[in-house]
Amino acid sequence: MDNFIFNAYTKIYFGKGMIKNLPEAIEVHGKNVLLVYGGGSIKRNGIYDEVKTLLSECKIIELSGVDPNPRIETVREGVRLCKEHQIDVILAAGGGSVIDCAKVIGAGYYYDGDAWDLVVEPNKITKVLPIVTILTLAATGSEMNKNAVISNMAINEKLGTGSMNMIPQASILDPEYLYTLPAIQTAAGTADIMSHIFENYFKKEEDTFIQNKLAEGLLETCIKYCPIALKEPENYEARANLMWASTLALNGLVGAGKPGSWTCHPIEHELSAFYDITHGIGLAIVTPRWMRHILNEQTVGKFVAYAKNVWHLPEMTDPFAYANAAIDATEEFFKNCGIPMTFSEIGINEEHFEVMAEKAVRIGGLGEAYVPLTKEDVMSILNMCL
Amino acid sequence: MDNFIFNAYTKIYFGKGMIKNLPEAIEVHGKNVLLVYGGGSIKRNGIYDEVKTLLSECKIIELSGVDPNPRIETVREGVRLCKEHQIDVILAAGGGSVIDCAKVIGAGYYYDGDAWDLVVEPNKITKVLPIVTILTLAATGSEMNKNAVISNMAINEKLGTGSMNMIPQASILDPEYLYTLPAIQTAAGTADIMSHIFENYFKKEEDTFIQNKLAEGLLETCIKYCPIALKEPENYEARANLMWASTLALNGLVGAGKPGSWTCHPIEHELSAFYDITHGIGLAIVTPRWMRHILNEQTVGKFVAYAKNVWHLPEMTDPFAYANAAIDATEEFFKNCGIPMTFSEIGINEEHFEVMAEKAVRIGGLGEAYVPLTKEDVMSILNMCL
Repeated sequence: MDNFIFNAYTKIYFGKGMIKNLPEAIEVHGKNVLLVYGGGSIKRNGIYDEVKTLLSECKIIELSGVDPNPRIETVREGVRLCKEHQIDVILAAGGGSVIDCAKVIGAGYYYDGDAWDLVVEPNKITKVLPIVTILTLAATGSEMNKNAVISNMAINEKLGTGSMNMIPQASILDPEYLYTLPAIQTAAGTADIMSHIFENYFKKEEDTFIQNKLAEGLLETCIKYCPIALKEPENYEARANLMWASTLALNGLVGAGKPGSWTCHPIEHELSAFYDITHGIGLAIVTPRWMRHILNEQTVGKFVAYAKNVWHLPEMTDPFAYANAAIDATEEFFKNCGIPMTFSEIGINEEHFEVMAEKAVRIGGLGEAYVPLTKEDVMSILNMCL
Repeated sequence: MDNFIFNAYTKIYFGKGMIKNLPEAIEVHGKNVLLVYGGGSIKRNGIYDEVKTLLSECKIIELSGVDPNPRIETVREGVRLCKEHQIDVILAAGGGSVIDCAKVIGAGYYYDGDAWDLVVEPNKITKVLPIVTILTLAATGSEMNKNAVISNMAINEKLGTGSMNMIPQASILDPEYLYTLPAIQTAAGTADIMSHIFENYFKKEEDTFIQNKLAEGLLETCIKYCPIALKEPENYEARANLMWASTLALNGLVGAGKPGSWTCHPIEHELSAFYDITHGIGLAIVTPRWMRHILNEQTVGKFVAYAKNVWHLPEMTDPFAYANAAIDATEEFFKNCGIPMTFSEIGINEEHFEVMAEKAVRIGGLGEAYVPLTKEDVMSILNMCL
């Protein structure tokens, strides 16, 4: 187990009606609030009105229209608003995209240059305006971590940045907010949660039993509850378990003591940067193909544990057959959740494979992944996805 | 799943040599430090000297001799020292007792009356001096939570108190510090960790799958690594997994969304209040008897899950046989770890059973436990321990 620092300091308000705590969470930081949100779903589901009522003593400036893959242009506009209105605290109401956008706006407020610098060079992030979130999608874990992913479509780049100072101060997680999600977002969000776990579960360390057990438990939670949430969108138990899984999957617990690069996320970032697809869908398509590509004598033991402890598949004498059964189960699971499982279904062809593969390896550091990948490896995985 | 607030904001520095971060963790709060420790083991294992060297720019006042069941008298002395020397931050170097003592000292600094009030009435705790810990025993989880247990032997009381403001600001967890622990402390500490998990695993909620999976994973970690640590005290993997399990077992994760009173802890607190025994030993003795006492038609399903998911026992058709096999395994496990498993072995007889049972029910709120217990129930459990 490698040394690690763990500091998930976000105060989580979890459960039905917990938005009532919003004034306490906001006003400790000040009265000038930048409210960041997306396409307006918070107006349809009542969150917008509730925020306005609860924060009636605050001055609220709005930044709406944050895209699913949030753009640097929106960040720049948010920074401008914060400076113009002397904002004290940013309230992000939405999914990971809205929260990520808010984080980089908060960092940009204290930075004199262009905010894109903070995406390319995270070490330029020094201070960040306090971030409070109201989560409306179980997926990215951004509600309790230091990460943000921002796209610059002008140069086809989608990059992750991060700083301990970007961790939200407080997050309100009400599972009822997930009731009205379109089915594909529930499914894609779950694929994103599971991918966060896979990226840390499949690592070289052999001595991280405790992290592996936490990872397996979170994966089991996703596998149990995503189908229920799809069938019964207002099943509170399913929504609550999925929502808490999304947060715990990427707040540092699962990856503690397990260094090394991720794999599917850097590959998917290239897909989104070129085609603006839903992140979780890209991950679901790439993941089983990546698993098949890296299955070998060295990795088969890990896949056997995955088959046994996560999928509880009946044991088999041939470890490769057992490992493949677990990979089949993974692919089948995403398919049954209604996720299109080939590139052709979402309009991606091989046109940009070479440049995407090259960038994924270079920017994502795939040479330091669980199984190090070359550009040729990534192209081979991408071809399996067609 | 009940609503909950989760806020484990402690910054954890985990791993070999992470004490090097002590100056950063301390000096952000100030230069006047109260160093709290126990019987001097930190002098033998080098931690004391390292603290002195690393904090050479601080003024360090010492409070040593904290007892294993920390006394209110020691707390009072600590408060006096803090006020006299205008302490900025308290550094607790030791196990849970030292940390608990430091927490209530930190609260007492801002309280005008007698510190025992803060133990009896936690809502009197408003502000607390910053607490930083160096952990030397994997057991109580105090390094990342709001709890403290203080004894007042003059009136045979051992009570828990707590406040979000008592959560340590930072904790240094170096598994190598556990290498020199006496075997019985490794075993008793593990029993304490497991008891924290049991107290939350066995709760009425049926819809907390995710918390239950985390609990099972942490229990498996204890079961796997305690025997290894006992056999090979310098096995880093075993120490690291146990140490992180102790922290995660009681930082709020396992109990989130699962209200209700605990059972074995209130009973054990009475044992310690009357006999000053090691907390984890008392818990190990009481736990399997409590399990046998509450096993019934309503609870058997939970014990079946425990048998299957934690102990991985071969399935049986009779659920009660299966449940009892898991309880047997629990008792056998503690015994094999070298813990004396009867009261007679540790000098406890039935003399105070009646008053202890009455107090456990009243003070511990056992009427609100997983299976509500009366005074007679507790006496029956205590008699099974003889």
